[in-house]
Amino acid sequence: MSDTPDSVVRTYIQQHRAAFLDDLAEWLRIPSVSAEPDRAADVRRSADWLAAKLRETGFPVAEVWPTAGAPAVFAEWAAGDPDAPTVLVYGHHDVQPAAREDGWHSDPFEPVTVDGKLYARGAADDKGQVFFHTLGVRAHLAATGRTAPAVNLKLLIEGEEESGSPHFRELVEAEADRLAADVVIVSDTGMWSETTPTVCTGMRGLADCEIELYGPDQDIHSGSFGGAVPNPATVAARLVAALHDTDERVTLPGFYDDITPLTDAERELFAELPFDETAWLNTAKSHGTLGEAGYSTLERIWARPTAELNGIGGGYQGPGGKTIIPASAQLKLTFRLVAGQDPDKIEVAVSQWLASQVPAGIRYDLTFGASTRPCLTPLDHPALQSVVRAMSRAFDGQKILFTREGGSGPAADLQDVLAAPVLFLGISVPSDGWHAPDEKVEIDLLLKGVETTAHLWGDLAAALR
Amino acid sequence: MSDTPDSVVRTYIQQHRAAFLDDLAEWLRIPSVSAEPDRAADVRRSADWLAAKLRETGFPVAEVWPTAGAPAVFAEWAAGDPDAPTVLVYGHHDVQPAAREDGWHSDPFEPVTVDGKLYARGAADDKGQVFFHTLGVRAHLAATGRTAPAVNLKLLIEGEEESGSPHFRELVEAEADRLAADVVIVSDTGMWSETTPTVCTGMRGLADCEIELYGPDQDIHSGSFGGAVPNPATVAARLVAALHDTDERVTLPGFYDDITPLTDAERELFAELPFDETAWLNTAKSHGTLGEAGYSTLERIWARPTAELNGIGGGYQGPGGKTIIPASAQLKLTFRLVAGQDPDKIEVAVSQWLASQVPAGIRYDLTFGASTRPCLTPLDHPALQSVVRAMSRAFDGQKILFTREGGSGPAADLQDVLAAPVLFLGISVPSDGWHAPDEKVEIDLLLKGVETTAHLWGDLAAALR
Repeated sequence: MSDTPDSVVRTYIQQHRAAFLDDLAEWLRIPSVSAEPDRAADVRRSADWLAAKLRETGFPVAEVWPTAGAPAVFAEWAAGDPDAPTVLVYGHHDVQPAAREDGWHSDPFEPVTVDGKLYARGAADDKGQVFFHTLGVRAHLAATGRTAPAVNLKLLIEGEEESGSPHFRELVEAEADRLAADVVIVSDTGMWSETTPTVCTGMRGLADCEIELYGPDQDIHSGSFGGAVPNPATVAARLVAALHDTDERVTLPGFYDDITPLTDAERELFAELPFDETAWLNTAKSHGTLGEAGYSTLERIWARPTAELNGIGGGYQGPGGKTIIPASAQLKLTFRLVAGQDPDKIEVAVSQWLASQVPAGIRYDLTFGASTRPCLTPLDHPALQSVVRAMSRAFDGQKILFTREGGSGPAADLQDVLAAPVLFLGISVPSDGWHAPDEKVEIDLLLKGVETTAHLWGDLAAALR
Repeated sequence: MSDTPDSVVRTYIQQHRAAFLDDLAEWLRIPSVSAEPDRAADVRRSADWLAAKLRETGFPVAEVWPTAGAPAVFAEWAAGDPDAPTVLVYGHHDVQPAAREDGWHSDPFEPVTVDGKLYARGAADDKGQVFFHTLGVRAHLAATGRTAPAVNLKLLIEGEEESGSPHFRELVEAEADRLAADVVIVSDTGMWSETTPTVCTGMRGLADCEIELYGPDQDIHSGSFGGAVPNPATVAARLVAALHDTDERVTLPGFYDDITPLTDAERELFAELPFDETAWLNTAKSHGTLGEAGYSTLERIWARPTAELNGIGGGYQGPGGKTIIPASAQLKLTFRLVAGQDPDKIEVAVSQWLASQVPAGIRYDLTFGASTRPCLTPLDHPALQSVVRAMSRAFDGQKILFTREGGSGPAADLQDVLAAPVLFLGISVPSDGWHAPDEKVEIDLLLKGVETTAHLWGDLAAALR
């Protein structure tokens, strides 16, 4: 029996597995913590290390791109075929802070392997998931006999994701021409579980605002004046209460108007996921579910928008009581948005709604923070179908299900600026401990990531041609 | 023309005015600030000074009563008539903190007289209003030729009113027999204005509680979980919003059931007061009125109960935003209560209401603070009629109108423990600057207080016989 492409890929990966893991461990030893100013040199060293490694991998172009903060790495490997589509892979090389005393069982910056798990800060988030692209592209070449990938392959690996990507959009806008792509592949997410491989199809967007409400010029006596003047803290509370109806639907006029509805097909595929509410509540550290009527928990967090109160404050919050009507109160709200919703329109709706709700005698300031657009790839998008096929090959023909991501991220900036669909290819699992002590990556899954990309570039080149 | 009792009283007061004011100034020089531990000796000195002065005035009994905190002063002067009613006068000898640098134009503990106003901390609140009883009882004797007052006159002048009267109820309960009285007269309030003499007929009561709400075990990510679990800060806000209906009526079941309704007569008399909403809003430092439908501003603050939010807090309150669902939130509420309402029943109603409102997945703690009963003297009460007559004589026959007090105070403890109606006799005016820099008392009004009490004891003795 002659070698199939799949067996060639697997053999190639087995042959290079040890060197691949050694290299990854070397990278993981660099404590590229973007949030810690003392580590700025380490973050730069991490970028330099990665650029050198990408050149060694074969990328003809591998550059460190400075920003006003930590540097990103850009690499490019042209297909050498004028009809080849262009793919941009996104990831990040900075990591969350970590210290042994936070509860780690080993030094977070000295990788150790136990039972097929590689423990280190960044093992899953995100160095491991960036790094599988290096061996992946080599396996792709080995299996196809090509000297360049079947797609024009670009990588953009930022250095400030764990610090909120403050300079990312600016960088993407400045380098939009060089970053131009037909498809963006984000490798900074995960799968449902070790045994249920999934592809994420979208992230929620975000609009956020702060509302400051002013009543009396100073705290006043609630005995002398209570019952006759408006209380800004009460008004703040009433605003929050008025934001939802009894079905937990957001009452902002027009809030749901533009939403791309969840398809029946996607709902059915979500429902195939082995969801265990008790386990999910444990992860959420919560003691009950509550959400929009007519939707499951997964649909609520992945595919439905929210209006969430992140903080409220007003009046006396110390021990005991204080008989005052407070001078002011404050609300912090975020709106998670789903495909079709436009943060700018939501902000207008919030402004109008607020003006209609605040009673006479209360003044207010409304401030909006930065917003992020939602992103969603339809299930029938040809590039998504390619990812599913490639992943299914890596996972021995298993059915690939779909998830979405409830959070919001810099992927949306790529989608917006580059006007390209965003796909997600991640092999991390919920037990990997992102941002927690003992972060790890499952080595078998990491190699499935390698294998997936080894198949993906050829498939994509054909699908998008 | 022979001397009328009124002219005898006035002449007596004129003759003793200078000495009276000198004595008061001496007392005002003692900085009896109960809230400042360093002033404890001064508070004791103030009590000793007053007891000595009351003995000098003629009170056969004048004692300093220690408490676990600052001492009170008790004095008693029997009428020597077995049918004479007993009156207990309440006031306090401690004062608010004051320092020149707070904005005083003279030393707060060095009284100065300018344009008929005596400036000093305590001039109005409450030493001046306690002190008018000394010259008052002497003028009463002078005008009637008696050697003892027409009523059994008792004084209880506490030393911790400005610190929340923490030991007052305990003291009143312990000494209930010696304090027993047919009527309590509180001289720690004021009148509508210099030109509109009024009598206060009641104070609101108070119930207060703190509600702590718990959601997730720690702050959780509002992207990953938002829309699917209950948010304790949102629940806190919804509780506040649910506490009132659109007519600003409190929705607690049974809240209004036991209220002694405001009579038409009292509403008409309130309406005769020269109320200026703009001026009132200035005093309230507020920019609009809002309250229970169907009631005027004065009715709302004096005669209607409230549910007021004194403080709310939950989640992130720092600069910028934080995408969390908070672990907990907190509410501080006070209920001002009016005649007929029982704080104990209100607490039960709050407990039941809360249990019915909090959704699954949110746990809570409800804690009640100390409560105070409301007090109210009906307009047709004979003792109140005596006060009105005595005051009208002092104010040259002017019509005496009625107010109430929106706040709550230790008067309610006297009402409860002694089972006696509480009347209010105060001559302070809103411009006197209680608790503020440049506190003062209008000397003419202070002497009207003297004159009122000079007439009151004889009138009361007849009215209550």
